Amino acid sequence: MTVASPARAARPPEAAPGRAERTRARILAVALKLFNELGEASVTTTALTDALRISPGNLYYHFSNKDDIVNGLFAQFQEEIVTMLQVPQRHIPTLDDIGMYLRRLFEVAWRYRFLYRDLNHLLERNRTLEQNFRAIFAHKLETARALCRALAGAGQLEANATEVELLAHNLVVIGTYWLSFEYVRNPRHMNEPAVMSAAIARGSEQILAMLSPYLRGASRAQFQRRSSARPAAS
Amino acid sequence: MTVASPARAARPPEAAPGRAERTRARILAVALKLFNELGEASVTTTALTDALRISPGNLYYHFSNKDDIVNGLFAQFQEEIVTMLQVPQRHIPTLDDIGMYLRRLFEVAWRYRFLYRDLNHLLERNRTLEQNFRAIFAHKLETARALCRALAGAGQLEANATEVELLAHNLVVIGTYWLSFEYVRNPRHMNEPAVMSAAIARGSEQILAMLSPYLRGASRAQFQRRSSARPAAS
Repeated sequence: MTVASPARAARPPEAAPGRAERTRARILAVALKLFNELGEASVTTTALTDALRISPGNLYYHFSNKDDIVNGLFAQFQEEIVTMLQVPQRHIPTLDDIGMYLRRLFEVAWRYRFLYRDLNHLLERNRTLEQNFRAIFAHKLETARALCRALAGAGQLEANATEVELLAHNLVVIGTYWLSFEYVRNPRHMNEPAVMSAAIARGSEQILAMLSPYLRGASRAQFQRRSSARPAAS
Repeated sequence: MTVASPARAARPPEAAPGRAERTRARILAVALKLFNELGEASVTTTALTDALRISPGNLYYHFSNKDDIVNGLFAQFQEEIVTMLQVPQRHIPTLDDIGMYLRRLFEVAWRYRFLYRDLNHLLERNRTLEQNFRAIFAHKLETARALCRALAGAGQLEANATEVELLAHNLVVIGTYWLSFEYVRNPRHMNEPAVMSAAIARGSEQILAMLSPYLRGASRAQFQRRSSARPAAS
């Protein structure tokens, strides 16, 4: 296909190569910030060009509409989350490894929190996002199963196939919605790093707690040491 | 206070007592149906008066704006969920009782699914809803703790205070967000009763699975019988 899109054809003079790429990255960064702070639905393209101090023409050269920006941010998110979902294969993960891994996953979700916050609203009108999110959920489930199998293979987890399947689904649901739960309980402070960081730590502990009854051997002992050193969430 | 609100003062001739109450109930019922099917954000008051075949004046006699309708629906939801959350006190609940109880809770959430689907978006602009939802989450947590304590008291559950606290939070998060998780995986069929009823059954099983490692005595045996009779979710 060699047909140029009309939006692309209208390249403004300031969008020289190199510089154009930087502008595109800056649009995505500022959109992400505003979407996270105000909700995607509340941010108009005018608010965006005002915050960026660029012309509407310059914005439309890079993105044909707001959904196009959402999809651009989703592509970044997808790349980060898929990289992050890879469980380290070198050794059997300890609980501290898993805790660290969960916190990194929550941090990615937090950086793109507008996607989760407005998820159902976004899915209603954006088919690309719908298919991609379904793929991410499938990927998360597969990762949760792989983690259980790796622990079981090393004698660190005991659960039959049905239990692993039910457990994997619960792990993914808590991993996906814990921050939404925290948001409902404290919506006015969720943009504060300290508040979010405490919420992320609680989410990781909730997930480890769900795994804990199935842990055996060194991992079980490690879990017991961790819990006795830490107060419960409230 | 005897100051009549301007909206109330404009009572239209068709809104005689009795009839007015029926109209109010019909507005709430039709709004609930449209909010559930299309999302609250996509339903204008004009779409609502068209579907109801009433005049805007008649609508505004009953509700001063869309948030007022949302709050009216929330009040109905709150009444139903609070009644439903009461764990039967007569006897120690069996797993079948708990499964039935969970399905009834999910059904209430499904009937008012627009509240959960658009929750964060609604909370951003509606302070009443924010405070009430926080109270509902607190109530759900207290119910989950009470259920664990009742089972523990009857020798049907073994968990220390920290474990009960972590477990109660996980139970509430799965109970609150399971249907959202199902929605992302199958957004186009979620209004079909058969699809939703299967999703609700899976949600109840996921919650029982989370309780299961802590079950003892007759409840543990009952769980094992249930799981061997049922295939895992996928």
